[in-house]
Amino acid sequence: MTVDKYPSRTGQSAQIMERKDPVVHRNPMFSEGPLSDEELNQFEKNGYLFLERVFNEDEVAIMKSELQRTMDENRHREADDVIKEPGSDEIRSVFDVHKDNGFFQALSKNARIVQAAQQILGSQVYITQSRINFKPGFKGKEFYWHSDFETWHVEDGMPNMRAVSCSIILTDNYEFNGPLMIIPGSQNWYVSCAGETPEDNYKTSLQKQEIGVPDNESMRWLVEQADGKIDRATGPAGSVLFFDCNVMHGSSGNISPYPRSNVFFVYNSIENKLEAPFSGQPPRPEFLANRENVEPITPIR
Amino acid sequence: MTVDKYPSRTGQSAQIMERKDPVVHRNPMFSEGPLSDEELNQFEKNGYLFLERVFNEDEVAIMKSELQRTMDENRHREADDVIKEPGSDEIRSVFDVHKDNGFFQALSKNARIVQAAQQILGSQVYITQSRINFKPGFKGKEFYWHSDFETWHVEDGMPNMRAVSCSIILTDNYEFNGPLMIIPGSQNWYVSCAGETPEDNYKTSLQKQEIGVPDNESMRWLVEQADGKIDRATGPAGSVLFFDCNVMHGSSGNISPYPRSNVFFVYNSIENKLEAPFSGQPPRPEFLANRENVEPITPIR
Repeated sequence: MTVDKYPSRTGQSAQIMERKDPVVHRNPMFSEGPLSDEELNQFEKNGYLFLERVFNEDEVAIMKSELQRTMDENRHREADDVIKEPGSDEIRSVFDVHKDNGFFQALSKNARIVQAAQQILGSQVYITQSRINFKPGFKGKEFYWHSDFETWHVEDGMPNMRAVSCSIILTDNYEFNGPLMIIPGSQNWYVSCAGETPEDNYKTSLQKQEIGVPDNESMRWLVEQADGKIDRATGPAGSVLFFDCNVMHGSSGNISPYPRSNVFFVYNSIENKLEAPFSGQPPRPEFLANRENVEPITPIR
Repeated sequence: MTVDKYPSRTGQSAQIMERKDPVVHRNPMFSEGPLSDEELNQFEKNGYLFLERVFNEDEVAIMKSELQRTMDENRHREADDVIKEPGSDEIRSVFDVHKDNGFFQALSKNARIVQAAQQILGSQVYITQSRINFKPGFKGKEFYWHSDFETWHVEDGMPNMRAVSCSIILTDNYEFNGPLMIIPGSQNWYVSCAGETPEDNYKTSLQKQEIGVPDNESMRWLVEQADGKIDRATGPAGSVLFFDCNVMHGSSGNISPYPRSNVFFVYNSIENKLEAPFSGQPPRPEFLANRENVEPITPIR
């Protein structure tokens, strides 16, 4: 049995542990790619990297129309991987889009992002989760602080911190429409959470996470380590945000009229495949954490 | 009977009307004061004015301790003018603090703010509402877009747009801890809201406003008039925000660890005293809208 390097929700009280894995896994075999040394150092320091206008306006226009088309196609499909607004047919997210044998599958292999993920993770990569998100203006919900890794480790059995999220933003992100907020440097600490994981936790946690939520004391401590700073991922459509699997992030609601949409891929190192969940419970469904037919991605230029 | 210059909640659908009152009521009798012509012009254009560090650190420290003391004194008092967190003894707001015969009464007469209000309103002024607010970090609630005047007109019988809110901020306001958001220029338009006012609306509207809420189409239109801009009142403790009674404002939630507190006075022109509410219903209680013993304030230097 694999040793649990990052225990959480074990019934103990909350505590902060040091990270046991590198943030940037430098590997000469995978040093070629779009990211400069300076950018890799920035990622290592802050736990994220915001690259402006990786995709141009025409590319963004195509992505937006493909996103709309995919949402429309799923409007009347009732399935776990389609997340709707409560009591409505309005779709907020569609998961597993990298398996569509079409546009989003090709996008998920785009060299501009895959090679960046390879540079960060120092290995070949595959996708462990993907989705497209559409959040309307006026009523965008807040997302409380969390480390993705905490959930992926406990509920999906991701053994090590060697995964990176890639968000392609399709709408301008402003200070006032609920941009992602990140505590820089927080990727270096693991907040082990109190409580235990209930069965089928994912059925409610996608809308509001109740378990695996960091305590206030740990959050204050993390912000102190960051000299009080909380960064926001703001910038124009077509920009790409890479963020470490363990960086503490969240977002406020969005009461502005500006909607937000993005494409979201999680790249995991091929050397960090999912095992049995550390919660001891059955794994979450495939659409949340890919286990079947995992193959390294060949980047498309 | 007074003519209703700004009908709203009359059962009609939402519509946008032009403002019928000046934003800055320039009056040579009240031109002396802390605000420069440029600042008055800015207020007139944007509907608000953010003045950095009107009060110094020592003054802020005293205000914070007086705020804490007042909150503590009211902790076990059950009254409408003390707003608690649902299901808890934690106090969020105490109203009517300008009648405390002590610190906040003196502060409400401070020449630095009263004379600014006189310059804007072009007359003597009195306080129609006051409160102190404490909003903790991590769980600060959002406040949806609204014009204060819409409520004050319909529910309190404030006849004309000739009032200004003054918020003395006691904690640093950042982009990430739910600062007040303002649509610059929106004070020039009145969004007449759909619906009608239920009885005792104030008992629920202080926590979440359901009636007198602008419709999405009007909100989009107001933001378009502002060239897409939404401003945020960010700055250090001790700063003062003046904003017009009709400017459209709101705030996102606050998941950051940074709490927020402020002292809030609404100055109304002595020539704009409250009449019978335009809803036709009984007036709201005195702590929300002062009617009794209204006297013009003599500023204290």
